[in-house]
Amino acid sequence: MDKTFVTTRELRFGDCDISGTAYFPAYLDILNGVNEEFWSTLGYPWHEIIWKERWGTPTVHLSCDFSIPSLFGEELTFEVAVAKVGRSSVTLKHRVSCGEEERWKSTQILAASDLDKHTSVPWRADVKEKLMSMLQTEA
Amino acid sequence: MDKTFVTTRELRFGDCDISGTAYFPAYLDILNGVNEEFWSTLGYPWHEIIWKERWGTPTVHLSCDFSIPSLFGEELTFEVAVAKVGRSSVTLKHRVSCGEEERWKSTQILAASDLDKHTSVPWRADVKEKLMSMLQTEA
Amino acid sequence: MDKTFVTTRELRFGDCDISGTAYFPAYLDILNGVNEEFWSTLGYPWHEIIWKERWGTPTVHLSCDFSIPSLFGEELTFEVAVAKVGRSSVTLKHRVSCGEEERWKSTQILAASDLDKHTSVPWRADVKEKLMSMLQTEA
Amino acid sequence: MDKTFVTTRELRFGDCDISGTAYFPAYLDILNGVNEEFWSTLGYPWHEIIWKERWGTPTVHLSCDFSIPSLFGEELTFEVAVAKVGRSSVTLKHRVSCGEEERWKSTQILAASDLDKHTSVPWRADVKEKLMSMLQTEA
Repeated sequence: MDKTFVTTRELRFGDCDISGTAYFPAYLDILNGVNEEFWSTLGYPWHEIIWKERWGTPTVHLSCDFSIPSLFGEELTFEVAVAKVGRSSVTLKHRVSCGEEERWKSTQILAASDLDKHTSVPWRADVKEKLMSMLQTEA
Repeated sequence: MDKTFVTTRELRFGDCDISGTAYFPAYLDILNGVNEEFWSTLGYPWHEIIWKERWGTPTVHLSCDFSIPSLFGEELTFEVAVAKVGRSSVTLKHRVSCGEEERWKSTQILAASDLDKHTSVPWRADVKEKLMSMLQTEA
Repeated sequence: MDKTFVTTRELRFGDCDISGTAYFPAYLDILNGVNEEFWSTLGYPWHEIIWKERWGTPTVHLSCDFSIPSLFGEELTFEVAVAKVGRSSVTLKHRVSCGEEERWKSTQILAASDLDKHTSVPWRADVKEKLMSMLQTEA
Repeated sequence: MDKTFVTTRELRFGDCDISGTAYFPAYLDILNGVNEEFWSTLGYPWHEIIWKERWGTPTVHLSCDFSIPSLFGEELTFEVAVAKVGRSSVTLKHRVSCGEEERWKSTQILAASDLDKHTSVPWRADVKEKLMSMLQTEA
């Protein structure tokens, strides 16, 4: 269970819509920032791999279930788990909660991609090894 | 097939990331605007139902497949189809293309919701009838 | 007065905050899209100059006065006027209104910039000539 | 000088445009979050005053000078100083830097506003006193 990356975000004014709850595209902008933080902890900060190595990890699939709305000002916990590692893709599972209450869940597939050609490429060996080391035995 | 709502959006500078292609949360902000336009054509502009009637249609499920990236400056066609109508929910299918090429697809479930209580409510009879009239026989 | 570029935008759900009025950073994202449309009418679509010629027009100065809030669902008129043309900069004046009522005003300075070096460059002769042709005699 | 509020933000992928530097509307969304954090330290978290007391602090004036672009991945320092306190307004000065290098500056006027009537209201006595206690003697 310690393979799960955990971080928090406070739901800010700019993330919320007229109902006072999170605007779902803002939720996904936050999620992207959480993924960015996750990749930094793996040793592959996006700004380094994008600037220096010209590859990135665009999203090819995303599935979300929003079960309970989150209110402006709440502190949310984001859990990120590696569910599957493919030749050039990784499947992440996200669980977002406030205190004990689950708010939404997501399954997201990222693909290693050449930034200039906009085509997918296999993981470099060291990256794949790192992702494999994070793979959940149960998820 | 004429039950499908069709509109277009140009991919603007502010929608794109460092790779020069659409940032996926920006894609979903655009999609939300397309849905807003769709509801206006149904006769239920969101600003009227939210301001005057205090209900809205938050997203409870979203699933997207991004198959081909879209480049800054491209004109995208959004097709919106009603795939299912429930007691208090509606399932929309989106197809986003550029010319003949499909770029991404989405299935999204919206739920009628009381804006003040943040709880789902059944569709009002006239709204449900309108949604049913848009239901695709094949989707 | 026909040198003023005019376009409209409806204030969408995603542009508004918890108060039901425009979130000011969303206003500026809209303004940037209006500028993008303005440059297209000049014959210099940003996606062409950025992709093919590797220059852009980043903002170096921005000043805004928000006098009256705009409500979700309102149709806003954006007027763009060229107030000054420098060696590598252009000063734009924006006036945003709803019907007869002025909502906000902005003065913005854009600078021609080399996208790869992130440094300002003089306008190309044809661009400068085009901008000069749009210069307001009174503003 | 210890009246200046200081916080940091990393420039994330989603904040940057095709040039790899901060998109200026994203900069202002970040700035708004910095202001939100500043008001929390004053003892007036926006989510509390908005939810419970129905007032807020919309922006009525904003002036920014962007002198040097900031790159994706950089850590930025935001300094917030209270430059003037009026009957129902406060003038904030922001200085944004990366290491020793100043990147941009902003002067922003916020006005106390009744959220339901969208009209400005005088500061409550305790809020005004708190703002006055933060007033810079030189700015």
